[in-house]
Amino acid sequence: MTRDQVYNFAAGPSVMPESALRTAAAEMLNYHGSGISVMEMSHRSAMFQDIFDSAVEKLKKLMSVPDTHEILLLQGGATTQFAAIPMNLIQGGDADYAVTGNFSSKAAKEAEKYGRVHIACSSADTGFEHIPVQSELRQTAGAGYFYYCANNTVYGTEWQYVPEVSAPLVCDMSSDILSRPVDVSKYGLIYAGAQKNMAPAGLTVVIVDKSLVGRELPYTPQILSYKTMVDSGSMLNTPPCWCIYMLSLTLDWVEAQGGVAAMDRLRHERADMVYDFLENSSFYRLHARADSRSCMNITFRTGSAGLDSEFVSGAEAAGLMNLKGHKVAGGLRASLYNAMPVEGAKALVEYMKKFEVEHHV
Amino acid sequence: MTRDQVYNFAAGPSVMPESALRTAAAEMLNYHGSGISVMEMSHRSAMFQDIFDSAVEKLKKLMSVPDTHEILLLQGGATTQFAAIPMNLIQGGDADYAVTGNFSSKAAKEAEKYGRVHIACSSADTGFEHIPVQSELRQTAGAGYFYYCANNTVYGTEWQYVPEVSAPLVCDMSSDILSRPVDVSKYGLIYAGAQKNMAPAGLTVVIVDKSLVGRELPYTPQILSYKTMVDSGSMLNTPPCWCIYMLSLTLDWVEAQGGVAAMDRLRHERADMVYDFLENSSFYRLHARADSRSCMNITFRTGSAGLDSEFVSGAEAAGLMNLKGHKVAGGLRASLYNAMPVEGAKALVEYMKKFEVEHHV
Repeated sequence: MTRDQVYNFAAGPSVMPESALRTAAAEMLNYHGSGISVMEMSHRSAMFQDIFDSAVEKLKKLMSVPDTHEILLLQGGATTQFAAIPMNLIQGGDADYAVTGNFSSKAAKEAEKYGRVHIACSSADTGFEHIPVQSELRQTAGAGYFYYCANNTVYGTEWQYVPEVSAPLVCDMSSDILSRPVDVSKYGLIYAGAQKNMAPAGLTVVIVDKSLVGRELPYTPQILSYKTMVDSGSMLNTPPCWCIYMLSLTLDWVEAQGGVAAMDRLRHERADMVYDFLENSSFYRLHARADSRSCMNITFRTGSAGLDSEFVSGAEAAGLMNLKGHKVAGGLRASLYNAMPVEGAKALVEYMKKFEVEHHV
Repeated sequence: MTRDQVYNFAAGPSVMPESALRTAAAEMLNYHGSGISVMEMSHRSAMFQDIFDSAVEKLKKLMSVPDTHEILLLQGGATTQFAAIPMNLIQGGDADYAVTGNFSSKAAKEAEKYGRVHIACSSADTGFEHIPVQSELRQTAGAGYFYYCANNTVYGTEWQYVPEVSAPLVCDMSSDILSRPVDVSKYGLIYAGAQKNMAPAGLTVVIVDKSLVGRELPYTPQILSYKTMVDSGSMLNTPPCWCIYMLSLTLDWVEAQGGVAAMDRLRHERADMVYDFLENSSFYRLHARADSRSCMNITFRTGSAGLDSEFVSGAEAAGLMNLKGHKVAGGLRASLYNAMPVEGAKALVEYMKKFEVEHHV
């Protein structure tokens, strides 16, 4: 298939801005007349430091990150942060975890190795189909932090509010960072694996309140210490240079579209179109409760696993790729990240309509 | 500058095979008719799993990795392994470290957090200018492993023999992996950051004897557990997909050149040319002792820091990039990794000659 015959609904790694890919291809063998590729640059060279600084500066501007917070560009993915967060912040004490999906469950389990984990709320009993409201959040006095995952990629729910808690707020924004305005000053720490809205897999963005840095447990690996990484400008060792370059190109695209305000408008435009159709269909069933629905990942199913499977293969033949649900949730899932054109959502709805007409009994 | 006007002597990230870069550029927007970029592929897709499996298979074949050993493709760089190795293998007991340079010093220091570290040998007193011989290696009875770094990127020395020790042998091969044949069966664990001979920064290859897996300390982060990574086929979480793809393309190039035997011949061809010239010059001084010299990183200096600096800027103007020594060692350094053409070494010698003639007093 050609690129314009395909819409890629993968949950991550996922669709990237075509302009970023075109620039990367054009500059592949010779970056800005240097005669070398970005992949061949010393991370200690002025040329790479410029790319790094520029990516950080753009992110700071786009997300309005206050000077109280440091932006780190790290390796290891969210799973590494599941350990790094307690190792740096729990100090052998307590932490509260809001468990609203697959990855917050995993984060809470990993944190148990390093301190006392308290479940602030959980929607596990109802298949993670909703986000608890503020009044349901249980807080532990003296907790080192309160942890939640802003958008649940697997189950298709998203926090519609920022929890108000006493402890520093820690948030996994892997699947909705840069898709809407965020008041960073409310957070002790925000982190995100890059492979949904920012860059290829292999980069993790951590935005941390500098006043929380320097509390790590004694056996914390140097590479997982926020203090070490703040002190070394994210370069204790060689950073994932190519991913940082792609982040920079993607941020150019976000800015050109109008920044996070534009991303927010577009995410609603895409998601509303799909939700409106699904809500009015008696053929498809939505997984997430209306008050908790994600703009990034829409989870749904037909009447049977067999039909779901037929839906996926028919979609692929029509160029609508990766609509199968996550293995722990089953069913179907359409991920509509920043770089998904509105036309992709339209094409999905058209296909859904057609499939419904052909298979409704 | 154009690409053919430049030779890049960076110590890592460093020069890559042009064929790999050309393929990456050509496939950037549409991998094999899929309509998407490798950077946009779900790591759980059959298409990406093929790329992953193919990279592992090629590495297994090129390095003759026996079935007793597992190949892991991870994130985090060598610095992450500095902690992961003791966390997985020391079991709160002892480990021996051969300290022959910058990175083995750092590895030994990090390991002290997790057990008793014994210095098996050290060439620190003489500026890390040589590798101790077998009879100088002190071993601790019952040590969990014996650790060494095969090639010292910063100081330009390389082990010319494989240590014979009782404990499982653990080796950092970051800067000479794939440059010569290695008997993998002699090792408990080999690891290498990819950014010198294999792929862009952001990928770490770990080759581990499966019988050593499953001994991690209780507080080991899941992401650093070899057992977890063996069990999940390196995909506990999203791997650094793009780097793995570039590894696969680079391995195609290594194979096309004639594998590690050809790499070994070429590394000597390049390095011998430069060492022969430097040895016969009264203007330049070599850092490494003759019996310990690295084929990958050649460390040398002129008579003064001022001249060194002039050497570097003159070289850059002539398209010979990144010849400045590492900050902890000073002086000059030419890194001649696999992808450096023999012509690059020739051009370097020509420049050295010219510089000597112009500056010798």
